[in-house]
Amino acid sequence: MLDSKTLTDMKKAFPFVRDLRNSEGLLRSSARLHQFDAGTVIMDENQNCSGVIFVLSGVIRILKLSEEGKEITLYRISRGETCVLTVACLLGTGDVPFPVSAHAEQDATVVLIPVETFRRLFFESQSVQKFIFSSMSAKFYSVLGLLESITFKRTSDRLKDLLISKTAGGTYPLYATHESIAADLGTAREVVSRLLKDMESKGIVSLSRGKILLLKP
Amino acid sequence: MLDSKTLTDMKKAFPFVRDLRNSEGLLRSSARLHQFDAGTVIMDENQNCSGVIFVLSGVIRILKLSEEGKEITLYRISRGETCVLTVACLLGTGDVPFPVSAHAEQDATVVLIPVETFRRLFFESQSVQKFIFSSMSAKFYSVLGLLESITFKRTSDRLKDLLISKTAGGTYPLYATHESIAADLGTAREVVSRLLKDMESKGIVSLSRGKILLLKP
Repeated sequence: MLDSKTLTDMKKAFPFVRDLRNSEGLLRSSARLHQFDAGTVIMDENQNCSGVIFVLSGVIRILKLSEEGKEITLYRISRGETCVLTVACLLGTGDVPFPVSAHAEQDATVVLIPVETFRRLFFESQSVQKFIFSSMSAKFYSVLGLLESITFKRTSDRLKDLLISKTAGGTYPLYATHESIAADLGTAREVVSRLLKDMESKGIVSLSRGKILLLKP
Repeated sequence: MLDSKTLTDMKKAFPFVRDLRNSEGLLRSSARLHQFDAGTVIMDENQNCSGVIFVLSGVIRILKLSEEGKEITLYRISRGETCVLTVACLLGTGDVPFPVSAHAEQDATVVLIPVETFRRLFFESQSVQKFIFSSMSAKFYSVLGLLESITFKRTSDRLKDLLISKTAGGTYPLYATHESIAADLGTAREVVSRLLKDMESKGIVSLSRGKILLLKP
């Protein structure tokens, strides 16, 4: 059951909720508010989905793990977004289950809409369909961009792109471990450490424990 | 204008057409049948979409080109399928255009539904929406699978996977150039040639001009 404050906040973050009319009561009575601390594993691979999450605050990282424990960040979702892969799992043909994991990267507040309620809202409301469709397109594009970058770019260039984007072109320091950068890039920690050392020796970055300064973007 | 035979064939390949009722006339009068010879570039990157294609026969390859002319096959579409990226382009938020190319890999027959007609059918018919949604989910999954394989697998293993799948485990020879295999894998022709020579020296494949036999799957 959602309280009025959460429902109001949900309408702000997810405009489609305003168009639900008759089903607003159903949403309110069946949805649940959940809070996850940074670092929590929200959903593990191969776990069954009990519903669809809608993010009100914080950041959730959607990632894929390899059998050897390597990982790659597929995309992140934050306020106003949902995990389209869960939706595809629940509404799709069901032929091709594709397991991914969801980790809270920052403290996160989400509304979980149970499967049955979500299915009903989706097939009843064009606003829900439009929202899900454009979310899915956007994440599809972003995964294609990632695929393009992995296929055509060298890891060193991808690392530099990541540093530029995460430090706003060298304006702020980046607080991150080599391991978390490796997970973002889908490479091994050793590769990131070696590339960063290379960049340090060329004066491009300055490294200290858990902190990276980009000197020459 | 579609003739009766094409319309009947379209209903077989795309069951959602049977549910159109009032809009069937609109579809019939505005859609066009197109034929493409193998090798034709159907859509180039950055080209505007004049409509959505629905494949009645043949195979169309959806690919991404790098600035240096390298390419990678994202997925293929054949009878009963549509190019979901075109749909996402036309119906999505339009914020993130993502250019891909479509090449006829085999002689192909497609029905092209013009943008305006397609939009109307999509928002009028739940059958169209379900079809598009499950097509998009399926291709999203397949691109995620590709991303996973590129990130976590060695190129030599990906080449072996491709040979196994394209020769039905060594049952048939594969007629393909090293260049076309490289395009499928998103790597350079030289890499494929080197890996195949390696496999030949180990007795895994037998190579002759344009033909590859997989001896030990």
